[in-house]
Amino acid sequence: MSSPSEQSPPEGIRFRLHTIIFEADTPAGRAFDIALLWAIVFSIIAVMLESVAPLRERYGPELRAAEWFFTALFSIEYVFRLIAVRRPLLYARSFYGLVDLLAILPTFLSIVFPGAQSLLVVRVIRLLRVFRVLKLAHLLGQAEILITALRASRPKITVFLGTVLTIVVVMGAVMYVVEGGANGFDSIPRAMYWAIVTVTTVGFGDITPKTVLGQLIASVLMVMGYGIIAVPTGIVSVELAAATRHAVDTRACLGCGVQGHDLDASHCKYCGHSL
Amino acid sequence: MSSPSEQSPPEGIRFRLHTIIFEADTPAGRAFDIALLWAIVFSIIAVMLESVAPLRERYGPELRAAEWFFTALFSIEYVFRLIAVRRPLLYARSFYGLVDLLAILPTFLSIVFPGAQSLLVVRVIRLLRVFRVLKLAHLLGQAEILITALRASRPKITVFLGTVLTIVVVMGAVMYVVEGGANGFDSIPRAMYWAIVTVTTVGFGDITPKTVLGQLIASVLMVMGYGIIAVPTGIVSVELAAATRHAVDTRACLGCGVQGHDLDASHCKYCGHSL
Amino acid sequence: MSSPSEQSPPEGIRFRLHTIIFEADTPAGRAFDIALLWAIVFSIIAVMLESVAPLRERYGPELRAAEWFFTALFSIEYVFRLIAVRRPLLYARSFYGLVDLLAILPTFLSIVFPGAQSLLVVRVIRLLRVFRVLKLAHLLGQAEILITALRASRPKITVFLGTVLTIVVVMGAVMYVVEGGANGFDSIPRAMYWAIVTVTTVGFGDITPKTVLGQLIASVLMVMGYGIIAVPTGIVSVELAAATRHAVDTRACLGCGVQGHDLDASHCKYCGHSL
Amino acid sequence: MSSPSEQSPPEGIRFRLHTIIFEADTPAGRAFDIALLWAIVFSIIAVMLESVAPLRERYGPELRAAEWFFTALFSIEYVFRLIAVRRPLLYARSFYGLVDLLAILPTFLSIVFPGAQSLLVVRVIRLLRVFRVLKLAHLLGQAEILITALRASRPKITVFLGTVLTIVVVMGAVMYVVEGGANGFDSIPRAMYWAIVTVTTVGFGDITPKTVLGQLIASVLMVMGYGIIAVPTGIVSVELAAATRHAVDTRACLGCGVQGHDLDASHCKYCGHSL
Repeated sequence: MSSPSEQSPPEGIRFRLHTIIFEADTPAGRAFDIALLWAIVFSIIAVMLESVAPLRERYGPELRAAEWFFTALFSIEYVFRLIAVRRPLLYARSFYGLVDLLAILPTFLSIVFPGAQSLLVVRVIRLLRVFRVLKLAHLLGQAEILITALRASRPKITVFLGTVLTIVVVMGAVMYVVEGGANGFDSIPRAMYWAIVTVTTVGFGDITPKTVLGQLIASVLMVMGYGIIAVPTGIVSVELAAATRHAVDTRACLGCGVQGHDLDASHCKYCGHSL
Repeated sequence: MSSPSEQSPPEGIRFRLHTIIFEADTPAGRAFDIALLWAIVFSIIAVMLESVAPLRERYGPELRAAEWFFTALFSIEYVFRLIAVRRPLLYARSFYGLVDLLAILPTFLSIVFPGAQSLLVVRVIRLLRVFRVLKLAHLLGQAEILITALRASRPKITVFLGTVLTIVVVMGAVMYVVEGGANGFDSIPRAMYWAIVTVTTVGFGDITPKTVLGQLIASVLMVMGYGIIAVPTGIVSVELAAATRHAVDTRACLGCGVQGHDLDASHCKYCGHSL
Repeated sequence: MSSPSEQSPPEGIRFRLHTIIFEADTPAGRAFDIALLWAIVFSIIAVMLESVAPLRERYGPELRAAEWFFTALFSIEYVFRLIAVRRPLLYARSFYGLVDLLAILPTFLSIVFPGAQSLLVVRVIRLLRVFRVLKLAHLLGQAEILITALRASRPKITVFLGTVLTIVVVMGAVMYVVEGGANGFDSIPRAMYWAIVTVTTVGFGDITPKTVLGQLIASVLMVMGYGIIAVPTGIVSVELAAATRHAVDTRACLGCGVQGHDLDASHCKYCGHSL
Repeated sequence: MSSPSEQSPPEGIRFRLHTIIFEADTPAGRAFDIALLWAIVFSIIAVMLESVAPLRERYGPELRAAEWFFTALFSIEYVFRLIAVRRPLLYARSFYGLVDLLAILPTFLSIVFPGAQSLLVVRVIRLLRVFRVLKLAHLLGQAEILITALRASRPKITVFLGTVLTIVVVMGAVMYVVEGGANGFDSIPRAMYWAIVTVTTVGFGDITPKTVLGQLIASVLMVMGYGIIAVPTGIVSVELAAATRHAVDTRACLGCGVQGHDLDASHCKYCGHSL
């Protein structure tokens, strides 16, 4: 992610706004971030409470007022963000620009289309805005190690997920034939849903095998699911160990300038220069 | 697996066919693979949709037409595969040869035996054909590391599964006596099914202990199941770490003899000697 | 934790009391610890048994007598602890001082407020007193390694929990719209409760998706939950390996400077120099 | 385990019997082991089938005949084992001697006490005899590594289980107060059973929280259970890695004769002698 600060060189108010809204290294910027964090959290709580029928009936006006208050707040913030950057359109089309828009749009649209209750739920997308604020926190380094490890695990995880999907499809088809519609397995997709519930060890129990053969196959599937969870765990452990090891050492070679040496390395592995 | 290409030296059409159907390093071969992949995926989706009763009733003819289209496609492909290889019989009896046959046979058999609905489910075995296509992808290396790790883990996993099976049999017999048929534990096999559901932490809830003693034993079994999942995970982690390390490099330094260098290293990280 | 012994220098009875009550390196101190351990365990069992309605009705007086016996015991112990330390107020306000008070207070309060049955449950907090006794056991070193590993994992675990919470909020809101109140998802908080039940692979089955789209989303959520359990496991494995390694040894060889020797090593395993 | 062969020096028939029954390095010994393995497996299957009511009614006499056949077989084997060892009493009181007795006793006792159906279930203990036979297989080395790792993990696992138990007791008491008997939490032990079902992510769903506060507490407990599974997994991974590493190298020092050096060690870590 290229920092938006590259697009807006110092020029008076815009620069000041940018420092407050987009950066966190000034007291004003930090205060803005903290205030924004709380506003997001409270607005999400308001959305949640509004979905509870008894609360909606009793505190309906108050919740709607709170909603409009937060929408107004985020709208002002959105306008200031557009002002603070040099190229507003580029920002508006970026990921966080769209998230910012989606955070305020549903409330305005609820005036135009009064019945669209379900539309209001889109507001929980505001939660994603929290990540923008946290982006600046010290957790970023740790998140980066996690992401590096998960990215390195991707090909292995793909193979693993492909295997799980194959097991689910084949087992779903088998259980559809073995158990049949009378026991809840009334189509292959539904039997696949059951297979996923079982192989992931969730086990809702809304659909369960009733026949002896079905229970035998289910047992095999359960032991499989119980065992193969070891595979992604092993993958992530190994990659995380590698990512942590690489993240630790920050020495740069004096000979060729390359970083990323192991902790126990005494010579550069690229040019042989001593570290 | 010995590549079939060894059995079919260049001889005109057969060679060309072989390159397209079995290899993926020419544009035509790659295009064929991608087309085949989509055909498999769509035919599986058609099988799934056909198992949904409302869809079968409404779109029955369309789904049957799609089915015959895919069967015709795979039949032509099967014939071309037989032509493309030197020894068709050897191919027909190989694993993928049988899978290819099983992918088209059920549809033809459904004419001869009209009632054999359950036979049609065998068609999901087509999914295994996906692996042949993916065989050529870059995921192969990663899959190999996984398989190496799992193969190395096999003796330990066998010991582990044996222990789990013993726990399941003993706990099943105990719960059969403690809870009895009135609470759903009406035979040792059924009680073993419950024990597997519990020890794997799936927990359907279709059979649950009702007596105090039964709930106590179940608690012990649950904590056991919760804890021993650590064992296969630990096993796979350790073997995967070993498999990854081995996959990385086997070069020994000429200067100090130390192994374990990264794949991109050109100099020993301990003494600086070039590798 | 600074040992309280620093606050109470030798001065006759107080010193003797302190040695018995707070230390475990004399026979009297060890005997006191073991007696206390059993008293705590039995008092907890009495609290549990009292909560079982049939037992309360039949053995009510006996259980109440046992309760008063243990309360008297712990009260005497509490008074002696206050005497044994130099600054009783400081002890009374410490964590274990408060736990000691909470262990005896509810029984006395039950005379003043006879109806406060639920208050009696506070007595299970006595269990925490076990940890004070165990503090002196050889398990402490192991617990410290675990705590070191968990503390080092904290930033990564925070990122992980934040991600899980975001998934839960977004998925809860989506399922609230997709399934609706008729299928049990009658508010976002309840749908979030379901999402937590699902993503942690607990799967009670008290609320389950009924629509096809809901089951599809639930499937994705289950595979997610099944997969991301690998992340905290990998984190703890790596940090635990680091914590164990650090606990092992920090000696560097005088001959070649290499670290990482076993605790029982007297010579460097690389160059043979004595450590 | 000291091999029983030390107690029985060569002396004709006893020696021959001992070689066949207790050892597996002669063709006769190996054949005996394999025959015994199958006899155990089939007798366990007979016990299981007998517990299924419809099968018991239809094939009652056949199953009873099979049972008597296996009991006779194991009785003869037991007598031969007593003959084959020098000190029969010592063998009879050993672990496997008792298991051998328990494998045949229930059938004989069922004549004396005809009603003791539940007694027959003791026969599944025969399964433990499988381990004696497998003792001689190549799996032993792997099992030993696993046992070494688990033994090394014991102090950490104790700390872990203690923490889980504390969480279960405290959460059980809290849920007993919060939910109350009307929602199924009718005593602290039952609420603890629910807490174990939840924290181990089994989630039967036979008891579930109904109040909002109860569901909130349950959510915290579920996330806890989901997260702390990482701790035993990490522990076992680390110890297993150590056990595997130590198991690999079998070099003995030429200077002091000590084994157990790391794979990368070039000098003895005890005396400094080069390996």
